[in-house]
Amino acid sequence: MTQATNDQFLLAARPVGLPKESDWQRAAPALPDLNEGDVRVKLLYLSLDPAMRGWMNEGKSYVRPVAIGEVMRAGGIGIVEESKSPKFAAGDTVMGVMGVQRYWSGPADDRGAMLAKVDPALAPLPTWLNALGMPGMTAYFGLLDVGQPKPGETVVVSGAAGAVGMTVGQVARNMGCRVVGIAGGADKCRFVVEELGFDACIDYKAGPVNAALKEHCPQGVDVYFDNVGGEILDAVLTRINMKARIVICGAISQYNATGAVKGPSNYMSLLVNRARMEGMLVTDYAARYPEGVASIARWMKEGSFKAKEHVVEGFENFPSALNMLFEGKNLGKLVLKVADA
Amino acid sequence: MTQATNDQFLLAARPVGLPKESDWQRAAPALPDLNEGDVRVKLLYLSLDPAMRGWMNEGKSYVRPVAIGEVMRAGGIGIVEESKSPKFAAGDTVMGVMGVQRYWSGPADDRGAMLAKVDPALAPLPTWLNALGMPGMTAYFGLLDVGQPKPGETVVVSGAAGAVGMTVGQVARNMGCRVVGIAGGADKCRFVVEELGFDACIDYKAGPVNAALKEHCPQGVDVYFDNVGGEILDAVLTRINMKARIVICGAISQYNATGAVKGPSNYMSLLVNRARMEGMLVTDYAARYPEGVASIARWMKEGSFKAKEHVVEGFENFPSALNMLFEGKNLGKLVLKVADA
Repeated sequence: MTQATNDQFLLAARPVGLPKESDWQRAAPALPDLNEGDVRVKLLYLSLDPAMRGWMNEGKSYVRPVAIGEVMRAGGIGIVEESKSPKFAAGDTVMGVMGVQRYWSGPADDRGAMLAKVDPALAPLPTWLNALGMPGMTAYFGLLDVGQPKPGETVVVSGAAGAVGMTVGQVARNMGCRVVGIAGGADKCRFVVEELGFDACIDYKAGPVNAALKEHCPQGVDVYFDNVGGEILDAVLTRINMKARIVICGAISQYNATGAVKGPSNYMSLLVNRARMEGMLVTDYAARYPEGVASIARWMKEGSFKAKEHVVEGFENFPSALNMLFEGKNLGKLVLKVADA
Repeated sequence: MTQATNDQFLLAARPVGLPKESDWQRAAPALPDLNEGDVRVKLLYLSLDPAMRGWMNEGKSYVRPVAIGEVMRAGGIGIVEESKSPKFAAGDTVMGVMGVQRYWSGPADDRGAMLAKVDPALAPLPTWLNALGMPGMTAYFGLLDVGQPKPGETVVVSGAAGAVGMTVGQVARNMGCRVVGIAGGADKCRFVVEELGFDACIDYKAGPVNAALKEHCPQGVDVYFDNVGGEILDAVLTRINMKARIVICGAISQYNATGAVKGPSNYMSLLVNRARMEGMLVTDYAARYPEGVASIARWMKEGSFKAKEHVVEGFENFPSALNMLFEGKNLGKLVLKVADA
């Protein structure tokens, strides 16, 4: 069943601002033979995430940058097609950091790929890249461990119609919090309120966020889960309560900045309100993923949690699909469908 | 002994940038007769603090702004000259928020003044406005409660030769930390290293702070106690360790900004390092001041803590003395001597 060659997107150049077509290069190397302990995975879905933009930049961060000429890093899910490892059998569904390519081959215990078997009966495959995967775990542990919401508190989340934001809002609502989303556009706002049960959603494109926060958070903001940075972070800082917690999860508004990043001018509100701003990374919680997956899967089964994916078809559309994240074009977790099972 | 009139500095106008002479107005109202429960205090020393600049601005903050035409708010220490309250007797030494004037009169339990008796035998009066007063308590509780330094960690403090910074550094050193100060000018740096026992001090006027941090904090920065904000906060953010704690105590570099405050552009370092930035206000720790005073007084007695005040003589010099804080002209806690006992 295996075709003789792979199909890959390599990073050709470090982007300035929004990635463009010429920052990518296609490659079609022959598929390698497997060594003892190796597996070959046929990728079915790739996860497209805002963090990928950071991996394309040079400079020290929490993971090493993707090298020029290297296969672009991405999470994905697929089927084991061939295995010379006792860890996985042909036909197993596995998730891991397998890159923007049609086939991943290597040692079953590869530390970069972090392959893990998943149960396809528990949820559709794209959901494993969403609520039951990295974005879901980011939301779950970032909100609960760093944000520490208490029932009755007001939780605000930006990027509310994105993969992380949708989960943050639903987990907070299930915790008994008032949940206010911030998203770009009426469709996204309607979706998170009507479909996901947020109490309100602020369309940042429709007017000043400050005034809308005042209206929708009459008791102030106790927890802010920030996926966007920039002006919105500054607006929320003017509305936080005493001892508020701001979870710094991302800053998508700044990822393609070609000048200096806009730091939060209103950060002295942290002093006035004895509040804190704290960064988090999902990989720190790897040992606790089973707890997060179990909670979210239970809520899904009970009907108090909905997963929503935005699936783009066609491996060849990877460059434009990735940019949808930065252009605010996705509603829900953005996933690229690579192949049928 | 009481002269018939008071002598006061009123806020005449809200300053734009650095306060100027015309932002102040002198007044000399008659001293009021005391009612039952009142005391009159003759002020001997006034505390000059960076926070006073914030109190002069309009807008909601942690305390209400000083009104135009109102006596400027300031902490001070003095002697009870007359008392119609059982709480204090004539001759008692009291500390409190008594304003920029020669005499304070009012109810002994006034909630704004927060008068408290102090033991003049424990330390010289200016030290009660310094290490045993608000700046000392700010440093003690901000460092220990919010910064949570552990022995062997590296603690960096800006405004190192100021009232708060000096205490932060000495408390951290007594905790077994490596202590690196940041201050403006060779004299200040020499003072905190040679006199106060800091391990190193970076003169931010002498060269790039980034490179100096790299040199003096070879193990990175675990706790940063920030009194200054601006470029220095951004520089430290590039050198923090995993799980670092940044205590936001002040931002003196920004207090006279006439444009937007410079937010920390490098705040995403909080995410990369899973670090936090948290604001604090000393008044939250009022119930625990006796603990802080006892610890610092014990260290002073043991010789492992030095208090240093910069005393400016003459009540009439208040406007220029206050500005010394923003011009970096004080070495140690800035105190204005109002009168002899």
